[in-house]
Amino acid sequence: MPVKKTADPEQLKRVLQPGSVAIVGASEDPSKRGYQAIGSLQSSGFTGPVYPVNPKGGFAKGLNFLTAIADLPIGVDVAVIAVPAAAIPRVLNDLADVEVAGAVVLADGFTSTTESGRRLSAEVQEISRTRGIRVVGPNTSGIAHVASGANLVGLPDIPSGPVSIVTQSGNMFLSVVADGQASNAPGIHSYIGLGNQLDLGYAECISALAADPSVKAIAVHCEGLWHGREFLAAASHAARSTPIVMLQGGLSTAGRQTTLSHTGSVSAPADVSAGVLRQAGVELVHRSDELAVVAGALATAAHMNPNRQTVILSDGGGHAALAADAMDMQGLALAELNTATRDELGELLGQSAALANPIDVAGATDANPMLLAECAEVLAKDPHVGAIHIIGLYGGYHLRFDSRLHDEELRTSERLVRLAQTTEIPIMVQSCYAHQGLDNHETLRRGGIPVLSSIDQSVRVMRALSQRGMWLGTRDERSVLQASSTTTNKEPDSLLLDEAHGRELLSQAGLPMAPWALATSAAEAIDAVNAFDVPCALKVVSADVAHKSDIGGVKLHVNGSGAGPAWDEIMASVTSRCPGAEIRGVLVTPVIRSSFEFLVGARRDPTFGPLVTFGAGGVLVEISKDVSFRAAPLTRREAHEMIAETAIGNVLDGYRGLTTVTKSQMADFLVSIGQFLTTESQIAELDLNPIVTAGDKILPLDVRVITSR
Amino acid sequence: MPVKKTADPEQLKRVLQPGSVAIVGASEDPSKRGYQAIGSLQSSGFTGPVYPVNPKGGFAKGLNFLTAIADLPIGVDVAVIAVPAAAIPRVLNDLADVEVAGAVVLADGFTSTTESGRRLSAEVQEISRTRGIRVVGPNTSGIAHVASGANLVGLPDIPSGPVSIVTQSGNMFLSVVADGQASNAPGIHSYIGLGNQLDLGYAECISALAADPSVKAIAVHCEGLWHGREFLAAASHAARSTPIVMLQGGLSTAGRQTTLSHTGSVSAPADVSAGVLRQAGVELVHRSDELAVVAGALATAAHMNPNRQTVILSDGGGHAALAADAMDMQGLALAELNTATRDELGELLGQSAALANPIDVAGATDANPMLLAECAEVLAKDPHVGAIHIIGLYGGYHLRFDSRLHDEELRTSERLVRLAQTTEIPIMVQSCYAHQGLDNHETLRRGGIPVLSSIDQSVRVMRALSQRGMWLGTRDERSVLQASSTTTNKEPDSLLLDEAHGRELLSQAGLPMAPWALATSAAEAIDAVNAFDVPCALKVVSADVAHKSDIGGVKLHVNGSGAGPAWDEIMASVTSRCPGAEIRGVLVTPVIRSSFEFLVGARRDPTFGPLVTFGAGGVLVEISKDVSFRAAPLTRREAHEMIAETAIGNVLDGYRGLTTVTKSQMADFLVSIGQFLTTESQIAELDLNPIVTAGDKILPLDVRVITSR
Repeated sequence: MPVKKTADPEQLKRVLQPGSVAIVGASEDPSKRGYQAIGSLQSSGFTGPVYPVNPKGGFAKGLNFLTAIADLPIGVDVAVIAVPAAAIPRVLNDLADVEVAGAVVLADGFTSTTESGRRLSAEVQEISRTRGIRVVGPNTSGIAHVASGANLVGLPDIPSGPVSIVTQSGNMFLSVVADGQASNAPGIHSYIGLGNQLDLGYAECISALAADPSVKAIAVHCEGLWHGREFLAAASHAARSTPIVMLQGGLSTAGRQTTLSHTGSVSAPADVSAGVLRQAGVELVHRSDELAVVAGALATAAHMNPNRQTVILSDGGGHAALAADAMDMQGLALAELNTATRDELGELLGQSAALANPIDVAGATDANPMLLAECAEVLAKDPHVGAIHIIGLYGGYHLRFDSRLHDEELRTSERLVRLAQTTEIPIMVQSCYAHQGLDNHETLRRGGIPVLSSIDQSVRVMRALSQRGMWLGTRDERSVLQASSTTTNKEPDSLLLDEAHGRELLSQAGLPMAPWALATSAAEAIDAVNAFDVPCALKVVSADVAHKSDIGGVKLHVNGSGAGPAWDEIMASVTSRCPGAEIRGVLVTPVIRSSFEFLVGARRDPTFGPLVTFGAGGVLVEISKDVSFRAAPLTRREAHEMIAETAIGNVLDGYRGLTTVTKSQMADFLVSIGQFLTTESQIAELDLNPIVTAGDKILPLDVRVITSR
Repeated sequence: MPVKKTADPEQLKRVLQPGSVAIVGASEDPSKRGYQAIGSLQSSGFTGPVYPVNPKGGFAKGLNFLTAIADLPIGVDVAVIAVPAAAIPRVLNDLADVEVAGAVVLADGFTSTTESGRRLSAEVQEISRTRGIRVVGPNTSGIAHVASGANLVGLPDIPSGPVSIVTQSGNMFLSVVADGQASNAPGIHSYIGLGNQLDLGYAECISALAADPSVKAIAVHCEGLWHGREFLAAASHAARSTPIVMLQGGLSTAGRQTTLSHTGSVSAPADVSAGVLRQAGVELVHRSDELAVVAGALATAAHMNPNRQTVILSDGGGHAALAADAMDMQGLALAELNTATRDELGELLGQSAALANPIDVAGATDANPMLLAECAEVLAKDPHVGAIHIIGLYGGYHLRFDSRLHDEELRTSERLVRLAQTTEIPIMVQSCYAHQGLDNHETLRRGGIPVLSSIDQSVRVMRALSQRGMWLGTRDERSVLQASSTTTNKEPDSLLLDEAHGRELLSQAGLPMAPWALATSAAEAIDAVNAFDVPCALKVVSADVAHKSDIGGVKLHVNGSGAGPAWDEIMASVTSRCPGAEIRGVLVTPVIRSSFEFLVGARRDPTFGPLVTFGAGGVLVEISKDVSFRAAPLTRREAHEMIAETAIGNVLDGYRGLTTVTKSQMADFLVSIGQFLTTESQIAELDLNPIVTAGDKILPLDVRVITSR
């Protein structure tokens, strides 16, 4: 029995781009998958050998069936297995005997909710591991390599192109293909249906696809990432060469329940995955109808220079305003044009045109579409312009205004393509006529200029081109995420430190802290309050008390004369309401008034490993939901991006003169927290909430630290 | 010269659905609008008389041109005027002489940015008013009544149907038609291009279209509403019979600049118009690609029972989860199914199906699509189910699985239509195959079941059906908005009241107020602080000081011994930094600690008239942007909806035991504020920020009142 090979890229390549295919469970019945699989290979133009196998023998589509897997030649690349779940382990062993590189297992019946499902799953994993056969699925709709015709998914007429699709859902594959066809998007390079991922998973797929230079974009749909940290590491490496666009399912409560019963996956909360996936360079889409169009555009168009902005070039004021609104809603800025640029545009377009960005040509192009290309050339010379977005009716002028414009529109498109290709400034076209597959639109699309009918989708694509440029342009300022940092916090082994202990730990690590004292007697408490000489908060210090306020363990606004009675009340209340709690004393901290309350947290996420959180803190944290996340360790740039993703971050760098703490200070603090979590492996969780600012100081007022035992 | 008629619905009907058309500026040149206008009437099947007019005479498309407007028969319904701006006043007068009901003015050149534009505009308005001729435009692309072929916009092949479109942008009309065609949405009833709205405007259009029973939905695109209050009044009446779907352009800063130069319009801020338009029953869309599909669906599908929820019936878990996510993102709840319903579904679908909502049939329907109709019938009997959303591949089973399913899918669609029509439970279908115009999908569409390819759009439509049901179901609990309440606050005439004066005014009106005292001397200030017996805030009282804190006019946390010095410091600082300010004294209020700060405001908006604002208050108001708006007077239900639109509203009715103020109390307070603004006509603006809660009390801490002089 051969020993398990380590993950071998060459072996995986044989599976994903097979030269020979076996069909185990071949059938003579046209309604069966074991019949259709032969047909779809043939109709897709697959030229390699196909070996149907059925113990009963048979004949279909010109091929005689082998009666045993043992009769296969040694070293077939991939086998599609169309037999029921119970037979899968035996079949896999037989396939391994004849050194088949990989198996695509269609059967369901491997769910973790049944005993038989769990047992079969374990068997399949064991065989894959020990016999060195790669398994795709089970419960997959198949895989496909379109250009070679290795169509093991049975969908006819998949258009060939540069986009790879990876998903757990066969239906989502159909959706992406249908959406792409409806919007005349670039075609498909390959499809990998991962199903239950007993062996092959998302991370390894991403890496394999990014290594293939014919893959220009990877569209991913997933429901939870079982190995999220591994995915972050793979994606942040793969994204350097290949854009990754991702749609997550199961982010809502009801969606989560659905994915649990569908694939046994549990998604990390939407805001967590949004933060860390963005960090890894993944373009997240939140609408399923964006996956195909964004991936298609990223596969063909250039990305934006991160130091430049977009210009809207419209043939109607109504559309121009809507495009500007969509830009604003999606957080994209408009380029401010040079005076020289405006002057040149004015000469081309005449008096009635609006020359500020958005540009409204106000009818000037209706009879002369070539003006759009001339304007685009002028705009491309402006150093502020990073992308040109043509909005309105372009391409359909010959339908709307005068059929004699047809040839001129075709020439205009050719000229726009030359401009896009010589300047590497992305050009996008939104047109009412985009649905119609017009020849001048096809010229644009072939030349790397996406053409879409929806203003909102078109702006969404522009945002993706902008974000891709931003990420690529700053990749040296980003953390290299390691798959190995996946140590998760096992809840049962965790230990809440008392607050004094937690504060000592953070101070030792050099992290800032609001002034405090530990009082172990009423007298010490009185002394501490008097020493601070301002009203203080007194909080019981006990590792046995998680919610101090709820059991009378906190007194606020205590002055010197009140400290003794406050001590007594706290002790009385805590001992009566939490009997047996070991009390170390009382923490004394000056009350600090602040207009703002932040929170900073750190924890080991079961999906994504070490994480840092930043946001609006205080009592309203669940109401405002103003938080952002990054995987740790994180860089200063990443910390700045975290801050920029929150609303509360806007009060830093000065807001009504109420704080002098800067974004840079806060970013440094977040980097330190990430470092602390990464180096102090015993820290399971850290909550600093609220954090206030006083002058130029960042002062955590409440500290909660949980360690692994 | 005939005297101006008052707005006459019969006259407007003649304009919008003309039986006879004159074309002023008719041309023999096929590239001219004056030629094309004849052609598009003929090709659209218009059967009424068409009268081309050109002083030089001429002949085109079988018609001899008249050489003078005076030669027209008396009482032609509408004239399309294709002559330059300067000639328009003369032409309008000539048309009025022969009692033409209305004129569609295509010319531009009426912008308010040029002297000639302003002069011409005034002339046109004067002629329209005094001579009783209705004017559409100028600067319009035209109007159309599709069924009668009265196509005065020149777009060929407009599909006929139940949706009317009203917009200032000819391009947006093209977009809506193109989007509708691409998604196989219902066709167009009529189009009104309003252009510069020198006479006919949005409000009157809405009323006229809603009065036409063949109009089943009105799609509106606008850039600012010049007469917003009038629109609210018209819309809230029209929406009782006819759904209104609206897209606003120019909501962003750049978009606003664009619309200003495009149509001279200024949009009210997005959050303001969102609140008041929703109040009026308008379905607002924020993406331009939603206007056609939402209007099309509202025109044909039933609205939802407001006491029920949606069920998702999916043929794939991946799609089901994405649909549930989209529901959550759009704020829609899923119905909780009865046990009996689940049991019946289980019998139909077998073991592997997921029977909680979302329902995943898990393959059971692949070979038997009729099961979907049977499941829908079971679901329709469940009293929790208000709408059924079928998600996945339905309609394309015969393409994906087995061509022999074609007829069964057609029968399934017929059965679904019967269900929708007999139960008035809306049914929606999302399908990957929706683009393809399949016969079973067309059966659904004709039967009032929208079929869309995008999950997100489909859920968006479901939300519109839900919101329409909610609005119609509660219309008796809504305020009747009057167009007459448009009195706007003229800034130059406004007067800031000192805070003591403002508080007196509100108290007289019976509105709640935090305790306060006016001290006119240091001694009175000391007495007041001692009487309250808690730390107090001292604020200068002066109508000449708008920003008290900025000039040292506020002292916080003042106790009895500090009151004298605080008085002195305030007086010294204010007199030195704001010399000549008339100081009435100092307002003394106890400092009230509160975990929450609200704001309530009231003002007379230049667009929408009297408005009430509610939201998160305090120093972070511009950061959190957590506010909602309604036109005043408002009802309790409307006040409750305002509260529900904010995040801070969630702390009412109990949040961590920190307040006992209820949503009902706050709603009553908002209703009172609306009433106060409506009855006290001298109040221009009112700001209560912050408002805190103490126990069950609503306590405004800071009061700012501006009156009209």
